[in-house]
Amino acid sequence: MNRIGWIGLGSMGRPMAANLLKAGYEVYVYNRTREKADELLAQGARWAVSPKELAEICDVVITMVSGASAVDRMLNGETGVLAGLSAGKMVIDMSTISPDDSRRFAKQVADRGGQFLDAPVSGSIKPATDGTLLILAGGKKDTYESCRPLFDVLGKNSIHFGESGMGTSAKLVINLLLGMTMEAISESLLLAEKTGLQREQILQMFSESGVNTPLLQMKKQNLLNEQFPAAFALNLMLKDLGLALETADRTSAPLPAAAVVHTVFNAAKETGKGELDFSAVFLHLMEMAGNQ
Amino acid sequence: MNRIGWIGLGSMGRPMAANLLKAGYEVYVYNRTREKADELLAQGARWAVSPKELAEICDVVITMVSGASAVDRMLNGETGVLAGLSAGKMVIDMSTISPDDSRRFAKQVADRGGQFLDAPVSGSIKPATDGTLLILAGGKKDTYESCRPLFDVLGKNSIHFGESGMGTSAKLVINLLLGMTMEAISESLLLAEKTGLQREQILQMFSESGVNTPLLQMKKQNLLNEQFPAAFALNLMLKDLGLALETADRTSAPLPAAAVVHTVFNAAKETGKGELDFSAVFLHLMEMAGNQ
Amino acid sequence: MNRIGWIGLGSMGRPMAANLLKAGYEVYVYNRTREKADELLAQGARWAVSPKELAEICDVVITMVSGASAVDRMLNGETGVLAGLSAGKMVIDMSTISPDDSRRFAKQVADRGGQFLDAPVSGSIKPATDGTLLILAGGKKDTYESCRPLFDVLGKNSIHFGESGMGTSAKLVINLLLGMTMEAISESLLLAEKTGLQREQILQMFSESGVNTPLLQMKKQNLLNEQFPAAFALNLMLKDLGLALETADRTSAPLPAAAVVHTVFNAAKETGKGELDFSAVFLHLMEMAGNQ
Amino acid sequence: MNRIGWIGLGSMGRPMAANLLKAGYEVYVYNRTREKADELLAQGARWAVSPKELAEICDVVITMVSGASAVDRMLNGETGVLAGLSAGKMVIDMSTISPDDSRRFAKQVADRGGQFLDAPVSGSIKPATDGTLLILAGGKKDTYESCRPLFDVLGKNSIHFGESGMGTSAKLVINLLLGMTMEAISESLLLAEKTGLQREQILQMFSESGVNTPLLQMKKQNLLNEQFPAAFALNLMLKDLGLALETADRTSAPLPAAAVVHTVFNAAKETGKGELDFSAVFLHLMEMAGNQ
Repeated sequence: MNRIGWIGLGSMGRPMAANLLKAGYEVYVYNRTREKADELLAQGARWAVSPKELAEICDVVITMVSGASAVDRMLNGETGVLAGLSAGKMVIDMSTISPDDSRRFAKQVADRGGQFLDAPVSGSIKPATDGTLLILAGGKKDTYESCRPLFDVLGKNSIHFGESGMGTSAKLVINLLLGMTMEAISESLLLAEKTGLQREQILQMFSESGVNTPLLQMKKQNLLNEQFPAAFALNLMLKDLGLALETADRTSAPLPAAAVVHTVFNAAKETGKGELDFSAVFLHLMEMAGNQ
Repeated sequence: MNRIGWIGLGSMGRPMAANLLKAGYEVYVYNRTREKADELLAQGARWAVSPKELAEICDVVITMVSGASAVDRMLNGETGVLAGLSAGKMVIDMSTISPDDSRRFAKQVADRGGQFLDAPVSGSIKPATDGTLLILAGGKKDTYESCRPLFDVLGKNSIHFGESGMGTSAKLVINLLLGMTMEAISESLLLAEKTGLQREQILQMFSESGVNTPLLQMKKQNLLNEQFPAAFALNLMLKDLGLALETADRTSAPLPAAAVVHTVFNAAKETGKGELDFSAVFLHLMEMAGNQ
Repeated sequence: MNRIGWIGLGSMGRPMAANLLKAGYEVYVYNRTREKADELLAQGARWAVSPKELAEICDVVITMVSGASAVDRMLNGETGVLAGLSAGKMVIDMSTISPDDSRRFAKQVADRGGQFLDAPVSGSIKPATDGTLLILAGGKKDTYESCRPLFDVLGKNSIHFGESGMGTSAKLVINLLLGMTMEAISESLLLAEKTGLQREQILQMFSESGVNTPLLQMKKQNLLNEQFPAAFALNLMLKDLGLALETADRTSAPLPAAAVVHTVFNAAKETGKGELDFSAVFLHLMEMAGNQ
Repeated sequence: MNRIGWIGLGSMGRPMAANLLKAGYEVYVYNRTREKADELLAQGARWAVSPKELAEICDVVITMVSGASAVDRMLNGETGVLAGLSAGKMVIDMSTISPDDSRRFAKQVADRGGQFLDAPVSGSIKPATDGTLLILAGGKKDTYESCRPLFDVLGKNSIHFGESGMGTSAKLVINLLLGMTMEAISESLLLAEKTGLQREQILQMFSESGVNTPLLQMKKQNLLNEQFPAAFALNLMLKDLGLALETADRTSAPLPAAAVVHTVFNAAKETGKGELDFSAVFLHLMEMAGNQ
C-alpha cells in the first residue's frame, strides 16, 4: 500500500495530499484542472492522465471532491476509477455526501472486486494542513484497519463507525450539532444585545464558561466585527442541515429545534447570506430583530 | 471590609462561605435553618440571630438564596437586612433572579444609603468549592471594584457588565446558551441513534471536534448511562429559559430556536423529568422518538 | 338597568354604544377626548364629566378602552368609577386585557360592593356595528345573567366561561388560534408560490375546502394585492400572542408551534410591519424567502 | 369518451366509480382483489382482467390507489395500462403522490402517445359519495377540458393549476394547511384546558368565530370525546407533511411553523398514535402537557 492515487485538489485536498507525500508515500494525482497540481508535482507527486490510470497504478484511490455527483463522475465512465479497478484495491471517499450515496458507491466498487470506505472529515483548512483532522469512517473493519496508516498521517484521530454509509452519517450528525450550536450562540448573543449587554464581554463570558467551544473561538472575530468571510459557507451548512433533516424524517427522529434552525439558515440564505460564513446566521437574526 | 455577612447555606452557599473563611475573612452567617451552619461555625464562622443583626455587624452582606422571594424575605421586614443597614454598607445578591427584581432590590438598598450589586455566578458545586466560579456583576463600577477582593476568592474571574440588573441579565443569557446547547447535543445524539450509530463513539467524536464543550464533558456519563442525577435540575433550567424568553419578548428579540427549546423542556418536565438533571432532555427526546 | 354608562369611544366603542342607544337604553358617555362623543350626543346620548359621575348616575358602567392601564385610569383616582360606585352596581370591562388584570379589577369593584364582569369580544368593526359580536364573559353567573339583555344587543351570542378572568382567558385562546391560523395560511401560500402555483387559484382552493375560514375570506384581498391596511394591527396580535405564551408558561402548557409563530410575528414587527394588518405576516414570510 | 376504466376500489374509489355509473357512463373496473368490485358489478359495471385490457377497451383510465408505487404497478409491466394504451387515450391519476412522481408518469404516458392528468382530490369518503369532492388538476389544458364532464360528476368543482405535477403540488399545499390548522386548534385547546376553560365551550366559541372551519366541525366530536377513529390517519398526514417540507427545502421556502408541526406529528406517531385520525395530535399535546 505504497502507491496512493489522489483525486480532488481543492482547498482541503491539496494540503492532505501534501501530507501523504511528506510522510513518504508515492502519490499520484488527478484533478479536473491540471494547474492545481503544479505545486504537488514540484514536491514529488506524479500526474495521472485519468482516474482510470490512477486506479491501474495505485493500491488505494482517495477522492476528495465537491459532492456526490463529482464522485460519480470520477468513478464511472470510460476513464473512471472503476474501469481501472482490479480485485483487492481500495477506494476511499473523503467528500461529504449522503449515506445513501456512500452505500451506492460502496456497492459499485464491491461489484468490481474492490473495497470501499466512506471517510469524510471533521475540520477545515488548518487541521487539513496540520494533519489534525478527525476522520469519520464507514465500511468493512479490515478495510478500515488497512487504511489506518494513511488516516494517521491525515488526522489526529479516526473513528470507525461501522458499515458503509456510517461515516457519512456521522458527518451529518456532527454538522447538525455545529449548525445548531452556531444558532444557539447567535440567539443568545442577540438577547444579550437587546438587553444592552456588551458583545465583547458576553463573548468573554461564554469563553470562560461551560459552553465554550473551539467553534466559538474560531468565529469570535466574525461575531465581533460583523464580517463573515466564508470558512464554511452558509449555503453548504444549509445543504447539510437539509440532508440531516431528510435522514431524520426517514428514520422517524423528531428534532424540533433542528427543524427550526434549518428554516432560519434557509431564510438567511434567501435574504442574501448564502456565500458568507455560516456564522452569518447571527447577522440574519440581528436583521430580524431590526438591529441592522 | 473585613466582616462579611453571609445569608443562604445551600449546596452553593456553604462552600462559598467556607472559601471566604479560609481566605481570612471574619464571616458571620445566617440561615433559615440553623443546622446547616454547624460545619461553618466549627470552622470559625459566627452566628447572627437575624439578617438585621448581620447588617449591623458587617461591612458587606451577601445573599445566596433560592430566588427573588427569598431575597425579598431576607432584605425586608422587621428583622431584615434593610432594617440594620447604614450608609456605605454593601449588599451583594449572588442568587439567580430576574433583572427587574435585581433593580428593585438595588433601589431598596440605595434608599437606605447602601450600595447593591447583583452578582450571580456561572458554575455549580465543584467550582463553588474550588473557588473557580465565574462571577457576573451589575451595579456601580466603584462598588464592584470594592468587592473584587471577595470575588477573587470566590471565583476564577468576575465580569462587570454595567448597572444594576446587568449581572442577572448576563446570567439569563448564559443559561439560555446552556439550555440550547444541551438541546442541540441531545437532538444530534438522537439522530445518531436513529441511524444506528453508537452513542459512545458519537460522544467521542463530539469531544474531539469543534463542538466540544465543558458541558458535554460534564454530562457525557449521564447521556451514556441514561442516569440523570440532578446537578442542575431541569425544573430550574425551565424557569431560567422562561425568564430569558420573557426578556426576549419585552425587548423584541425574536429567538425562534430558543422558543422551541423552551417548549421541549416544558414537555420534559410535564412528562415527569423536572427533578432530574437538565440533561434529561435527551431522555425526553428519546421517548418522543419511541426509543424508550 | 336602564341607564348605561359607556367609557371608551374608539372604533369599536362608538358603534357598540350606538347600538345600545338604538335599542332604547339611556346611554351616558365619557371619553378622554370629548369630540369623539359628538355623533353619539347628537343621537341622544348624554355626556358625563367624569367616570365618577357616570358611576353615580348609571346602573351599569362599561369600559371599552385600549388596555389594562387605561382601564386602571378609568376605575381609580379621585374622579374614577370606583369613587362613584355604590353597592349593587355593575362594571363590565370589554377591553382585551390579561386574566390577571381582570381579576385585579374584579376585586377592586367587589371591595366597593359592586359586581364585575370581564367581557371582551371576538369580532372587529363590522360585527361591532351590526351587533353581531361574540361576547366572552367571566364573573359571577347571576351578574352575567343580569347583563345578558345588553349582550343580546351588542352581539349575536355571548358565552359565560366561569369566574372572573375566564372571559379574558378565552379571548387569549381565540386570538392565539387566529394568529396561528394566519401563519398557517401564509406558510402554505408561500409553499404554493415557490412551487409555481397561482396565488388566486390557491386561495380559491382553500375557500372551497375543509380549511376555509371567515378569517381567510376577510384577508383574501390583502393576500392577493399585498396591501395590508390594518383591521387588526400586527403589533396588537403580537402583544396577544405574547400574553398567550406567558399564560402557557405559567400553566405549563408546551405549545411548540405557537412559540415559533410568536417569534415570526415578532420579526415581522421588528422588520417594519407592526402597523400593518396582522395578515402582513405573509409579507414577512415572502421577504424571508427572498420573494420581495 | 363514454367508456371509463377505473382502477382502485378502496373506500374512496368505490363511491367515485359508482357515481360515474349513475351518471350513465359505461364503467369497466379492475382491482387487485376482485371481491371489492362485487357491488359495482351488480350495479352494472364490467370487470376487466387486467389494467392492459382496461386500456384497450376504454377511452379514459382512472387510477385511485394507495400511492406512487401502486400507480407504478398498474401502469407498467406486461399487463399494465401502458401496454394497452394507444394514441389519444387518457390516463388520470387521482391518487395522492409527489409532484415528481406525477411528472414521471406523465412522461411515460406521453411516450406511448397518451395524455396524462394528475388530479388528486380534496375531501374524504362523504364528499366522494355525494360527488362533492374538490378536484385539483395538473396537465395539458385541453386534456383537462376533455375530462371536465367526468370531474363534474365526481366533484362540486375542479381547478386546473397548470402543467403536470401542479395538481399534486396543490394537494401538498392544502394538506399542509390542513395539518397546521389541526395543530393550531389543538394547541389553542390545550392552552384553554390549562387555564381551566371548558373544552365544549371553547369549541363552541371557535365555531362561532372567524376561525371556524369545516375541519373543526368534522373533528369536534373527536376532540370532545378523545376518541380518534381514523378518517385520515395521522401516519398519512405525517407522510404528506414530510413531502411538503421536502418540497419546501428544494424550493428554498423557509416554513418555520410547518417545520415544527412536522416534528410534533412525527412524535405523535412514534409515541403510538399513527393509526389514529390525524386529529389525535391533540391527544399527543395533552400527553406532553402531563394531562393524560
